Amino acid sequence: MTAYQRLTATFSRIATLNEAAAMLNWDAAAMMPPGGAAARGEQMAVLAGLSHELLTSPAIADDLAAADGDVDQANLALMAEAYRRATALPRDLVEASSRACSACETIWRVARPASDFPMVSAALTEVFNLTRQIAGILGETLGLSPYDALMSQYQRGIGAADVAPIFTAYETFLQTALPAAEERQRRNPTEPLPPGPYPAAIQEQLCRQLSAAAGLNFASARLDRSAHPFCGGTPTDIRITTRYDEDDFASALMGVLHETGHALYEQNLPHAFARQPVGEAAGMGTHESQSLIVEMQAVRSDAYLSYLAPILSEAFGKPITLAALKSRLRHVERSFIRVEADEMTYPAHVILRFRLEQALIAGELAVADLPEAWNTGFQSLLGITPPDDRRGCLQDIHWYDGAIGYFPSYTLGAMAAAQLMAAARKAIPTLDASFAKGDLSPLTTWLTTNVHHHGARLGFNDLLRQATGEPLNPKAFEAHLTARYLT
Amino acid sequence: MTAYQRLTATFSRIATLNEAAAMLNWDAAAMMPPGGAAARGEQMAVLAGLSHELLTSPAIADDLAAADGDVDQANLALMAEAYRRATALPRDLVEASSRACSACETIWRVARPASDFPMVSAALTEVFNLTRQIAGILGETLGLSPYDALMSQYQRGIGAADVAPIFTAYETFLQTALPAAEERQRRNPTEPLPPGPYPAAIQEQLCRQLSAAAGLNFASARLDRSAHPFCGGTPTDIRITTRYDEDDFASALMGVLHETGHALYEQNLPHAFARQPVGEAAGMGTHESQSLIVEMQAVRSDAYLSYLAPILSEAFGKPITLAALKSRLRHVERSFIRVEADEMTYPAHVILRFRLEQALIAGELAVADLPEAWNTGFQSLLGITPPDDRRGCLQDIHWYDGAIGYFPSYTLGAMAAAQLMAAARKAIPTLDASFAKGDLSPLTTWLTTNVHHHGARLGFNDLLRQATGEPLNPKAFEAHLTARYLT
Repeated sequence: MTAYQRLTATFSRIATLNEAAAMLNWDAAAMMPPGGAAARGEQMAVLAGLSHELLTSPAIADDLAAADGDVDQANLALMAEAYRRATALPRDLVEASSRACSACETIWRVARPASDFPMVSAALTEVFNLTRQIAGILGETLGLSPYDALMSQYQRGIGAADVAPIFTAYETFLQTALPAAEERQRRNPTEPLPPGPYPAAIQEQLCRQLSAAAGLNFASARLDRSAHPFCGGTPTDIRITTRYDEDDFASALMGVLHETGHALYEQNLPHAFARQPVGEAAGMGTHESQSLIVEMQAVRSDAYLSYLAPILSEAFGKPITLAALKSRLRHVERSFIRVEADEMTYPAHVILRFRLEQALIAGELAVADLPEAWNTGFQSLLGITPPDDRRGCLQDIHWYDGAIGYFPSYTLGAMAAAQLMAAARKAIPTLDASFAKGDLSPLTTWLTTNVHHHGARLGFNDLLRQATGEPLNPKAFEAHLTARYLT
Repeated sequence: MTAYQRLTATFSRIATLNEAAAMLNWDAAAMMPPGGAAARGEQMAVLAGLSHELLTSPAIADDLAAADGDVDQANLALMAEAYRRATALPRDLVEASSRACSACETIWRVARPASDFPMVSAALTEVFNLTRQIAGILGETLGLSPYDALMSQYQRGIGAADVAPIFTAYETFLQTALPAAEERQRRNPTEPLPPGPYPAAIQEQLCRQLSAAAGLNFASARLDRSAHPFCGGTPTDIRITTRYDEDDFASALMGVLHETGHALYEQNLPHAFARQPVGEAAGMGTHESQSLIVEMQAVRSDAYLSYLAPILSEAFGKPITLAALKSRLRHVERSFIRVEADEMTYPAHVILRFRLEQALIAGELAVADLPEAWNTGFQSLLGITPPDDRRGCLQDIHWYDGAIGYFPSYTLGAMAAAQLMAAARKAIPTLDASFAKGDLSPLTTWLTTNVHHHGARLGFNDLLRQATGEPLNPKAFEAHLTARYLT
């Protein structure tokens, strides 16, 4: 066995262990009775501990140093980075951070509904203090700024210096686009959907049918229910979950089609590199581009909605017009809650968080001052001020659980999705004609070739460059919004 | 940390890893899409490999030698035995055996429906050859005969020398009891149940209700569907599965109550020793006694069936009389298939297998001669001869998958269940009055104290001695059958 062969065997073993953890994670959300929670926590901790032990074995350092000859350099580089990350942090700091995040999240679960930020302020301060230390060490190890080191945990190949001007430009775009979209909506009153009930069983059947038609192979996937929709599992055993509201079919259906985009990415990762670092998805921004290109770009297109309306009418036995469907699925509105925001205002939510978390990590903003900074920033971006912290800085779990540097991924994904769709439309002139027949396969095939099959070989901007001819260019997203909401 | 504390930490880690494997095993049977099978196989192999590495670490040998002072001697002894077992076998032999079993099982899946024993004969010969080697090494390590070493993998504390005379005595009992039971059935014609359909949804609801009423805590358990019913999961997250036949409610209902007995044992294992060897179940014979005491002893008692009949009539909206229920659930009949056998003839199926597998391991019977030996033995025990090997020596997966020494557990469990029930009835004179109200809790409480809470501290016979005053005494089972089928 060569050094590189030993490395691929070890990384495959680690990935297989992480697959087991992914399945247990799905089970905890979708299946597990409440009494199982404590034991499951231990199971996850043991799996994570073993995975970390395998990754930090000194033999890996030796093999990384010795590997040469006919090796996959991209895979080797990702192995080396994973090893450097895993060995960079002192164990005490990792454990202190893990404990601080758990404690903070537990308090947050009470503080949020009570809209009581001071209750969680000290715990969140501790999370940011420890994350700042982690960011400093990781940054030094990887040659990145502290905040970029955090971002790179979620998405390689793009940093704050790339993102900041893109976000500033979007803020400027929004200042005219949002009032214009609102004005246009006022001129064209919304048409309501028929009242429910929309039986959950019919919704579920539809979700399954449309997800399969979008390309998901259910011989290697499941659709179940959970409190918080997500896409979990492994490339050959994808687990999508959703929840059903019998008054509103749209949230489950859009949710499942969103998760279907994530699932297609996982199913189409390069099989030849399964369980190798280079065979994984490229990052959360790229992942989000794949869910949003399905949900926002393809499914909410004029062409697909014209196909969908009669399907829905037939399934629910109610008249669901294209106009009503558009009113429901393509409505712009200033609102406080990120996860309920439309695609035009959503980036404003992200921009606010991106700026605030950078200031918090830099130590330029104190946690105690977060609510005021949030509300001021929100007013400046969207012209409204949250009436309380529950609808302000307490709404998202991310920071309270230690996920700092993650938020930009959502908007990077939305922008990349628009850029990829523009390139796909150019490459396949009949794309919308296929959508009008409910056929997403030309798009999926294009994405498989241009995104999925690359795995983690290319960072965010390199992948876009290869697929579209240029790095992230926010103009495609602005053009998409302009076409959909302003013309 | 003392040596013993290090040992308990390591064994807890191993047990937690095995819990993860148990959950994935359940998922594979109840949830997993077919495309996930290959990856799941890898996941199970990695977990098993890591578990084995942890167990065979040389540090364990040092700590076992060094542990003294205030330690739990039973736990320490079980740790030492687990270590001796894990380190006894050469890795080549374990891997060769694993491959041989997989290969043989794969061929068996084709050979069984084709009733083609010669097709699988060579592969089964290889399984027995390798198992014979394993049995020899394990026996030498543990100071047991080769066959007892195999038996002890499934049940500690009872060997072939204990079992053989008990089985011979049962054979004698059966020679008069079986014709007598048949004669009695001829005199009392069976009363049929009303024809179906018995909707699966109603069956499932009833199963859940009666399992909960039997004591299963569904805050720490689930009931799902799978092709082959089983009880899996972990003590705080029990997973029962069954399948529903809309023409016959009884098989799912009895199946779920059987698995409920297994599940109650797991739920009531001593929490203070969770994840320690001494906190596990005592073995497969003891486990089977807990499923059968619920299914066969309690649920099929006159008292419980008199409670059940009106419940079933109400649930299904059909008249289900006590007499019809008894005809369905307490009918004796010579038949070829073990898993469909009634409780009186079932031991004959086990006795045959017990004798044949001993002869095969001893090298006194060649695999090629198995069909003839099976048929001769079957004729001698039950007076009928299987018309083909599909209904003869090809019917069970056990040998073809390498599970040799397991079969006695079924009948040891049935006999222990009768003995435990006799002791419980003596201790609690109102037991049947509770059953008549559908209340199994006095029995469950008694079992928890006298069986469940002991974990693996006592071997098979010691546990019975402690609970009933004597080691396994088959007379209780004979008395039970006599009372139910002959008087």
